[in-house]
Amino acid sequence: MKIGKFSYEEYLHRLQSFHGSLAPGLVIEGFMVELALKSFPQGELFNAICETSRCLPDALQLLTSSTIGNGRLVVLNFGRFAIALYGKDSGNGVRVYLDSSKLEKYPEIRSWFLKLKPKKEQDSSLLLSQMKDTGEQIVSIQRIRVQPSLLKRGKMGPVANCPLCGESYPVRSDNAACRACQGESPYLEVGGHAV
Amino acid sequence: MKIGKFSYEEYLHRLQSFHGSLAPGLVIEGFMVELALKSFPQGELFNAICETSRCLPDALQLLTSSTIGNGRLVVLNFGRFAIALYGKDSGNGVRVYLDSSKLEKYPEIRSWFLKLKPKKEQDSSLLLSQMKDTGEQIVSIQRIRVQPSLLKRGKMGPVANCPLCGESYPVRSDNAACRACQGESPYLEVGGHAV
Repeated sequence: MKIGKFSYEEYLHRLQSFHGSLAPGLVIEGFMVELALKSFPQGELFNAICETSRCLPDALQLLTSSTIGNGRLVVLNFGRFAIALYGKDSGNGVRVYLDSSKLEKYPEIRSWFLKLKPKKEQDSSLLLSQMKDTGEQIVSIQRIRVQPSLLKRGKMGPVANCPLCGESYPVRSDNAACRACQGESPYLEVGGHAV
Repeated sequence: MKIGKFSYEEYLHRLQSFHGSLAPGLVIEGFMVELALKSFPQGELFNAICETSRCLPDALQLLTSSTIGNGRLVVLNFGRFAIALYGKDSGNGVRVYLDSSKLEKYPEIRSWFLKLKPKKEQDSSLLLSQMKDTGEQIVSIQRIRVQPSLLKRGKMGPVANCPLCGESYPVRSDNAACRACQGESPYLEVGGHAV
């Protein structure tokens, strides 16, 4: 059994090392990404969408060439357990999701996915082994076409020094000052230079 | 010269493989993450902020335990070349940014950072070697405290099947239907099952 270029064990090991823990979803996520990859035309450049911010983006980043930092992965915080790959130019692609209508035969996965019992009552090893056994059987795949707005990645444009903090920022999109100084700063305090 | 647990060459190799290309910023990003890590109290659990969506999130994900999928990395689209690490509970931490006031002596880095000449006129090898030589000398570090809202990661809460698409979604935050079905779908078309 292979997931991407890795053996099943190697995949779990790598993802655990990247993600920091062996979250139960990681197993099924590997199968989902693998199915999306093999259903997408080989050789065509793709971007990816992840419809939840939890866990699944890490499987995508590890198994595909799409990452947050290279702009080829968009994470949408819908809380849907789904991913999509689409042609960078065509916008056509596939969407893979965990299909709750296919979970009847797998009670441990079903109760994990639908949160039917508290985490501490989950049987983790049963859950992982059911996921390994079911693989693609509990997911569904659809053809999709993405909105045209997703096909162009805006260029950053010219930069200027922010008149308030003095740091460089994209002046065309953000206008008179950087967004942090316009009130979006995540910091309550920014002290003097620490070093 | 080491970046995180990697030799300089190994770091470049790993990041190029994850990110997909050897973007010039990757070199200085390694030094920035390294400086933030060694300035943060050892052993304290931290989360990370990245103030740009371009490139820098990948260095953070590769060199720290914070990833998009494990919820320990927040990417803010400010276009500022800066990162921060902060204590998971305390909210106190450090912020590291590329300091344009320190670039006078490094014209190739300065013209790359301030976009003073077109990409095709950049001397990539000069740029990379200047970055390798300058290392931490062109960045500055500050102490920060983050907004309290960043210290709690909301739980997803109960899930329900969306009455429109039938997929599982977080009902407490998103109410009567999933966000995609409420008009935020990235898809123009979702076809029938492809397999």
